[in-house]
Amino acid sequence: MVRCIDWQDGAVVLVDQTLLPAEERWLRIADPEELVAAIQRLAVRGAPALGAAGALGVALAAVGGRDVAGAAARLRSARPTAVNLARGVDRALARVPHGAAAVVAEARAVLDEEAASSRIIGQRGADLLGGMLPGRLRLLTHCNTGWLATVEWGTALGVVTVLHERGRVERVYADETRPLLQGARLTAYELAALGVDHRVVVDGAAPSLIARRLVDGVVVGADRIAANGDVANKVGTYPLALAAARAGVPFVVAAPESTIDSSTPAGDAIEIEERDPAEVASGPAYNPAFDVTPHDLVTAVVTERRTVRLSEGDTL
Amino acid sequence: MVRCIDWQDGAVVLVDQTLLPAEERWLRIADPEELVAAIQRLAVRGAPALGAAGALGVALAAVGGRDVAGAAARLRSARPTAVNLARGVDRALARVPHGAAAVVAEARAVLDEEAASSRIIGQRGADLLGGMLPGRLRLLTHCNTGWLATVEWGTALGVVTVLHERGRVERVYADETRPLLQGARLTAYELAALGVDHRVVVDGAAPSLIARRLVDGVVVGADRIAANGDVANKVGTYPLALAAARAGVPFVVAAPESTIDSSTPAGDAIEIEERDPAEVASGPAYNPAFDVTPHDLVTAVVTERRTVRLSEGDTL
Repeated sequence: MVRCIDWQDGAVVLVDQTLLPAEERWLRIADPEELVAAIQRLAVRGAPALGAAGALGVALAAVGGRDVAGAAARLRSARPTAVNLARGVDRALARVPHGAAAVVAEARAVLDEEAASSRIIGQRGADLLGGMLPGRLRLLTHCNTGWLATVEWGTALGVVTVLHERGRVERVYADETRPLLQGARLTAYELAALGVDHRVVVDGAAPSLIARRLVDGVVVGADRIAANGDVANKVGTYPLALAAARAGVPFVVAAPESTIDSSTPAGDAIEIEERDPAEVASGPAYNPAFDVTPHDLVTAVVTERRTVRLSEGDTL
Repeated sequence: MVRCIDWQDGAVVLVDQTLLPAEERWLRIADPEELVAAIQRLAVRGAPALGAAGALGVALAAVGGRDVAGAAARLRSARPTAVNLARGVDRALARVPHGAAAVVAEARAVLDEEAASSRIIGQRGADLLGGMLPGRLRLLTHCNTGWLATVEWGTALGVVTVLHERGRVERVYADETRPLLQGARLTAYELAALGVDHRVVVDGAAPSLIARRLVDGVVVGADRIAANGDVANKVGTYPLALAAARAGVPFVVAAPESTIDSSTPAGDAIEIEERDPAEVASGPAYNPAFDVTPHDLVTAVVTERRTVRLSEGDTL
């Protein structure tokens, strides 16, 4: 497997996800401010990949002898809803007193851990959905949660990948995920590479597919999970959970343990990142990047450490 | 007020809605087959406008001495979910034995009636929402239901228009309405012309706006309403109803009486038009044009004749 972001010869190397699938351009970034800009314009995105990016950005600052504290602050605020980004920054920052080499080692450890976590999340999620549902499954997912989002493998798409390896996937419906079309561009690209039968749908259509019994299970990632199990994820996730609950279809959240933010008691305390209205329309627009799915609509949260069945009364 | 479709000097004149808002190009169509093509590519769209288009298409065939029955069949099947289209065709077709002039008179009557109906629907919907809710309202709508969709005035946007005339509108959130962006292109254009404060949002964001208490009421149109009150409307409507029901926000459907199809007992009997996947993505895609909102999620249906409060046990 390829990594969407990595550390190579003193610099960060990442594939520019804004150009996919038309062009696979790899960027080599040595300046932490350039990495902040890359994060903001979504050249690198996805909660686990952002965790690695945060740590790598601090490593760049440390290796380059720059203002590490300033770089860390700017990295952390580049995407305020993504708790993994702040966590990656903090992990690397804690090693600064031990020298630049220690910071780089910590950032590389974050990379390796994210990759390993993804693989376990995929297996755990496949065990859960494969156990709950019979036969070959028609799954629905949102945004992009494959190797492009998670260093390697994927979270929600990692679950799809493992189910596919086990011969259990009939079809995947992928929300196109407006405004930036991560689903139509990135998830479709990854599913095609995996050889999975798939259809892109507009975000507004997905809930009716669930109602029409075209979907056996919904699996999504998360950008932040509050202590009570409320899930912040790419805008357009909440309507899937509403439709799944009404249809009695499992709604599974697959995310690394680092996504769980025990300091946030509930979803209403999660800051919703507001992005440039020009991403949506040329005239007046409102562009929240995330929505919050209340925990009572979530069947289970799957991490690399545990499977928490919220619908059966389990808590985080 | 301007009409988006009309009969002028033996031909149909309509504004090509695929080019708006960039260009306001008026087409003059004398061949019913050209009108079928215009309907299919959505140059004219919106349930009430399609009713007029169906009748006008039969008038074109009658005036031109063409195969009226064949033209009627092709007009009717140009958009199979739109019951108004078939109804307009049938009304004009019934006058064929009385000669071409009678057919044209009937088609013009459909135009006039649609325009008059819209105005009453707007007033009735404004009475309902204005009576249920206090103060200045933040409303959410989907797709396009203004004068472009309804010959004149509008259905759901007619409700917004009358509320605005009464000083009761604070803001309108308009779903962009993928894949063809009728909301971002047409509704935003109409709201700007009316001087209504508005924001375009991606379809996936609208349910979370309702959950976050940014919306006081949802008002949408309909393409077909079954006898039990289930509503077929542009795909992306159902998630709004799910979110409104959970938040306790009124979900009002504004549509002409002709949209009610008493021969269809329930929503699951409504054929869902499947459009070209290429409208959604360059790769594999699934593109249903409509979804069905079950009647238990609908607060009220407002027509030019009555206000049916489904949530209070009224039936159609």
